[in-house]
Amino acid sequence: MTAGAPLSTQAQAEIQAAVRTMFDGWNSHDMTMFASPFAEDADFVNVLGMHWFGRPEIEERHVELHRKIFRNSILKILNCTLRPIAAGVVLAHITWEMTGHETPPFAPFPPLRQGLITAVFVERDGRWWIASSQNTDIVSVSLPGASP
Amino acid sequence: MTAGAPLSTQAQAEIQAAVRTMFDGWNSHDMTMFASPFAEDADFVNVLGMHWFGRPEIEERHVELHRKIFRNSILKILNCTLRPIAAGVVLAHITWEMTGHETPPFAPFPPLRQGLITAVFVERDGRWWIASSQNTDIVSVSLPGASP
Repeated sequence: MTAGAPLSTQAQAEIQAAVRTMFDGWNSHDMTMFASPFAEDADFVNVLGMHWFGRPEIEERHVELHRKIFRNSILKILNCTLRPIAAGVVLAHITWEMTGHETPPFAPFPPLRQGLITAVFVERDGRWWIASSQNTDIVSVSLPGASP
Repeated sequence: MTAGAPLSTQAQAEIQAAVRTMFDGWNSHDMTMFASPFAEDADFVNVLGMHWFGRPEIEERHVELHRKIFRNSILKILNCTLRPIAAGVVLAHITWEMTGHETPPFAPFPPLRQGLITAVFVERDGRWWIASSQNTDIVSVSLPGASP
């Protein structure tokens, strides 16, 4: 049982650039830029378990969110690790920190949020795209945890 | 930009069987069975954003959790969709429902929880393994949402 081949320096640079594009798009509240690394048929699971399908829906839902609660938010990459799992498929695990968001009553997020995105990158037509991604807030607890 | 080839009936059956093994393992509180579909080098992000690496850690952390808060919990598959994204790589999106868990003070989960797991399956040595997975609780809200 072997993992994917080692990642070329070029692939690594391209994937890291795509991750930066997402975050730069978020911070300039330009959701077309934010969504541009997603494949046309990508899916996205947000921290509330909402599941969006296709780059157009991923973009549009984020446009709605940036009209209000995220309009002044800043998202920072804390760490980004890459792991090839098959030919032309790389997992990116991105930990992030967010400040400046508004906190809606149904989800009283703290003023400083941290979380973790898994983004599954695939190489298609000589470019790396996010095929699928999921995002989860990191909740600090001292117990073993409370999750399946 | 094209997605993976259509999934064979056999691959589909094998992946669905692996998902059932996870859930059967959970419900019989047998964490060796639960963890058996995970590749040796798999990673797992739980609903609290904890990130575990390798099948041994995934198993051991779940053993700890099933000593108490999940000891009487029942996890049910609501839906499981499969999407091939590259040769030998298939995304499984599994929605679940859980009852019978205890609710720790740091995370006051409701008596009936629902959530969504993305599991990235890879084919290695003629068998399908979970290379990576992430789990998020589904929170019902009527607003556009509050998530990056």
